[in-house]
Amino acid sequence: MEITPDIIGYIAAVLTTSSFLPQAILTIKTRDTDSLSMGMYSLFTAGVFCWLIYGLYIADKAIVLANIVTFILAATILSFKVYNHFLKK
Amino acid sequence: MEITPDIIGYIAAVLTTSSFLPQAILTIKTRDTDSLSMGMYSLFTAGVFCWLIYGLYIADKAIVLANIVTFILAATILSFKVYNHFLKK
Repeated sequence: MEITPDIIGYIAAVLTTSSFLPQAILTIKTRDTDSLSMGMYSLFTAGVFCWLIYGLYIADKAIVLANIVTFILAATILSFKVYNHFLKK
Repeated sequence: MEITPDIIGYIAAVLTTSSFLPQAILTIKTRDTDSLSMGMYSLFTAGVFCWLIYGLYIADKAIVLANIVTFILAATILSFKVYNHFLKK
């Protein structure tokens, strides 16, 4: 099998999208967000939302699907961070 | 100014790329990586490296530049996690 740029692109997309799953699982299990950056998850969640809008605009199903998954994972992690930072006593 | 898909794509790229900067700064300052997922940073760093190769293949300067920056930030965070996990006594 020849390694084409397309295949490398798909591998890249699967790796960067799926990477947020172990982080979300760890955060849900431990509820520990001390070493997570609020700035990172705020910017990242907003950015993924923009990618989602972009994907809808250009009607690209792969971009839309990947960014729906990533948005759910990143927003979950951000929610735990916000809860721990502002609400937890 | 009209909001075109291109502009939303650029905003998305700037947000998701720059988001790793506050995380890298926090990790370098506190050296705390307890709530960071090793799985996430392993998959993500490998994925960003694949995006970089993909960008070089299709000769897209924006993809190459964004992923060089993200790779440096993600690899820095991963290094701290690996050090704390395996080497710190």
